Amino acid sequence: MISWKNLDTLAAYRDLTALKGKVDLTKAMAGDEGAARVAAYNAPMGGGLTYYYAAKQVDDELLAALQRLADEAQLTEKYAALYNGEVINTGEKRLVLHHLTRGQLGGAVTADGVDKRAFYAAEQEKAADFARKVHSGEIANAAGEKFTTVVQIGIGGSDLGPRAMYLALENWARQNGFFRMEAKFISNVDPDDAAAVLKSTDVAHALFVLVSKSGTTLETLTNESFVKDALRKQGLDPAKHMVAVTSETSPLAKSSDYLAAFFMDDYIGGRYSSTSCVGGAVLSLAFGPEIFARFLNGAAEEDALAKETDIRRNAAMLDALMGVYERNVQGYPSTAVLPYSQALSRFPAHLQQLDMESNGKSVNRFGEAVGYPTGPVIFGEPGTNGQHSFYQLLHQGTDIIPLQFVGFRQNQAGMDVDIQGSTSQQKLGANVAAQILAFACGKSDANPNKSFPGGRPSSIIIGDRLTPEALGALLAHFENKVMFQGFLWNLNSFDQEGVQLGKVLAKRVLAHETDGALKAFADLLGI
Amino acid sequence: MISWKNLDTLAAYRDLTALKGKVDLTKAMAGDEGAARVAAYNAPMGGGLTYYYAAKQVDDELLAALQRLADEAQLTEKYAALYNGEVINTGEKRLVLHHLTRGQLGGAVTADGVDKRAFYAAEQEKAADFARKVHSGEIANAAGEKFTTVVQIGIGGSDLGPRAMYLALENWARQNGFFRMEAKFISNVDPDDAAAVLKSTDVAHALFVLVSKSGTTLETLTNESFVKDALRKQGLDPAKHMVAVTSETSPLAKSSDYLAAFFMDDYIGGRYSSTSCVGGAVLSLAFGPEIFARFLNGAAEEDALAKETDIRRNAAMLDALMGVYERNVQGYPSTAVLPYSQALSRFPAHLQQLDMESNGKSVNRFGEAVGYPTGPVIFGEPGTNGQHSFYQLLHQGTDIIPLQFVGFRQNQAGMDVDIQGSTSQQKLGANVAAQILAFACGKSDANPNKSFPGGRPSSIIIGDRLTPEALGALLAHFENKVMFQGFLWNLNSFDQEGVQLGKVLAKRVLAHETDGALKAFADLLGI
Repeated sequence: MISWKNLDTLAAYRDLTALKGKVDLTKAMAGDEGAARVAAYNAPMGGGLTYYYAAKQVDDELLAALQRLADEAQLTEKYAALYNGEVINTGEKRLVLHHLTRGQLGGAVTADGVDKRAFYAAEQEKAADFARKVHSGEIANAAGEKFTTVVQIGIGGSDLGPRAMYLALENWARQNGFFRMEAKFISNVDPDDAAAVLKSTDVAHALFVLVSKSGTTLETLTNESFVKDALRKQGLDPAKHMVAVTSETSPLAKSSDYLAAFFMDDYIGGRYSSTSCVGGAVLSLAFGPEIFARFLNGAAEEDALAKETDIRRNAAMLDALMGVYERNVQGYPSTAVLPYSQALSRFPAHLQQLDMESNGKSVNRFGEAVGYPTGPVIFGEPGTNGQHSFYQLLHQGTDIIPLQFVGFRQNQAGMDVDIQGSTSQQKLGANVAAQILAFACGKSDANPNKSFPGGRPSSIIIGDRLTPEALGALLAHFENKVMFQGFLWNLNSFDQEGVQLGKVLAKRVLAHETDGALKAFADLLGI
Repeated sequence: MISWKNLDTLAAYRDLTALKGKVDLTKAMAGDEGAARVAAYNAPMGGGLTYYYAAKQVDDELLAALQRLADEAQLTEKYAALYNGEVINTGEKRLVLHHLTRGQLGGAVTADGVDKRAFYAAEQEKAADFARKVHSGEIANAAGEKFTTVVQIGIGGSDLGPRAMYLALENWARQNGFFRMEAKFISNVDPDDAAAVLKSTDVAHALFVLVSKSGTTLETLTNESFVKDALRKQGLDPAKHMVAVTSETSPLAKSSDYLAAFFMDDYIGGRYSSTSCVGGAVLSLAFGPEIFARFLNGAAEEDALAKETDIRRNAAMLDALMGVYERNVQGYPSTAVLPYSQALSRFPAHLQQLDMESNGKSVNRFGEAVGYPTGPVIFGEPGTNGQHSFYQLLHQGTDIIPLQFVGFRQNQAGMDVDIQGSTSQQKLGANVAAQILAFACGKSDANPNKSFPGGRPSSIIIGDRLTPEALGALLAHFENKVMFQGFLWNLNSFDQEGVQLGKVLAKRVLAHETDGALKAFADLLGI
């Protein structure tokens, strides 16, 4: 029997608070003990990745306390309830089924009279078939010429995840013979966004993927009109250049305005939709359906590992627990995501949405105010770039900010140069290794300005190379981490009521139904 | 006589702490009072911009307290000391002269035997002359063909600022006939970064701008070798395709490896170098020297306004003071930067460096530990994109995060569509106006999940259009804000000792001179 309780009502949480400040990383990570921690404190992930947490503020006693917290909070049981189709999104009374887009973790889930795993798989196959026909030229423009570019029109979850995934695999695909079409993205209602993309695009050979679950997203419909306008001005028929990714009940679903429509449903939240057709259409077009399938396999592998009850064998659950310890016991207000891979340049922006939109909430799943901090601020940039920027504050600032590193042994593009006795890839790896130790151990100096206090926790995910499987596992790791944290904080991580008020007020401004400060600002902005 | 004192030793600061929680925005921003605040609480900026702070947690009493703090902390006097050439960067015993790259605010500053304003202006003119010759074809590739692309190779301050400025003006320049050459940027030591840029670049017609003040930056020299390698493989002479931006004393300064060299010096910090040749070379090549000059004019106008002692007429100083109130009195740990302009997509990343690297410090300018929080975490993405992402946490999360909006009345590209009775630009403006009020006033609802507490402070910078002048003023506003905050916290905002330890350890890894956890991580990363 599952019971949903606030974090601060759990006995294991109260025990955990007694362990505040227990592990001093400046000592724990030094010398042989440090090396022993690296050997002991790691957990397998999917896609050939491994999660290393030696530089987190944990030891065996603390891990045991986290295990008791996981057990008392019934994390495994709640995950099972989710993937078996219970109504976990209580606010909107919806199932939460993004795991089914990449595998079958539990029993068949039937909703609206259909097997949902079969439904998602069928839609992905539709998108795959469409992509194959585009690649072969069977589906072509009015002049019978092949499409060469795919442009996704979407915002939020219909943009950040797919865009980050595309960028993550673009160079890998080019290097390995899987690059089919360039992908571009239009998201912002700022008309300069669409204008810039269209200016650099050969629209006569471009296919546009319109993504809106509801079919009513203001930005996306606006940009659709913008694009249709541009197509018509070139004498092209928009209906021959557009596909829709939407829900079956949306106004876009059966429209003759599109070459095809691929469906998801209300059980796939936008920020969890990269493995649905929202990511599937554009990624299958860009790299081929077999690459998208490999990406799904990596995610599925990671999802299966998240069923493990031993937290030392369950990286996502452990990551979630340590994050709650950092946020609620240690009192750290933000977390930095620092991939040492240029291909992951927009991965932090995706995680920012995933995490902050899921767990940036002040009421529990029953609508009661919680008395503890929930989701932290998430931010980040790729290394080594960040080292020459905001790392100053991470090392010597007055707040401690936990760090999530990602690193690979090999680059994607296969091009490198040997300078001063090492390759660029080796320099990249040397830098991330060095940062972990600099943050953990610090270094004292007679000049206080050159002293580093250390004691700044981090974990690192390491893999051989950023492949589709590794990327899928990376994505699923953080989805599952966020889910487990939502369970711990007793939140509904799958709605986003906090985005509504702004929409309502914006409509009022556009209808000129405002007064007071809102009218004053609207006037200043020329509306 | 200037005295450098810690914030918490100032009587005005102790008075300010008594005003914690004084202004309730849910009331202050409602109704007629809200409209009156918008009319009253604004300050002029350079470049045609205006700074609006009605939605900050201030009132006349609080502003008076902030004025007393500004006076007691001698902000105006310290600024004057800086631009008149005192050794403000005490750690490195350097002057701080980036203001001289765009104007003469005080007396002539002579250092190393030269008038520094004249020196910077002469180097900018050298870069301008070079750019004109490239545009005319007088300087061309070995085949006598015009260069069509400029690629900047730099990292940190040699990358983020110039890149953000280029993106900010690219579409404006295309629209207004000032677009001369496309610019690209290589920064990361990850070889996939350079590989991707080179793959999409016609290197035979590309000019590379190598930027490193010291001439020893590992990433930049590595990427230089990477690029030279690529040029040679195409039978091209690297020396005919490269210019250097560096200091006169660096190994790059008199090298025959470059077509030309443009100089800055140790008095221009990397993160403050966008208005020096670091930004000047690439921006003059991309848009023409006259556009770069207009950008400098906007910055100079803003710098002059920052001399004002009345904080209600000095946006940068006021912004700094309110930020200190938010950070040290209200206890908010981070700040979001949210430009409602796609062109400013990388402006938050530049501000992240500017702010966090300048003021992410725990010791004062005398090397003594400070007993109060200093620089906050800075993060952000353009609106409306962020609204569909992390705004959930901003509205309903457990922490309050102050917000910095930017908005314009007109777009840059001049393309727009009218849908549902409004243009995209109007929708963009309506959204930012709506957000300010939603954050300030909130909205109660019978369903706590749909309730918005409000009370979340923001300011907005509004302009007619993002022109070179507006961009210069925007840049200088934040540079000066960060400088004033550094004065308030009694920090040296112009060094960055916190980046050193990682560099030292990374070298040790590459030399295989490691043990313990560092060796263990290096092994795992294949080094």
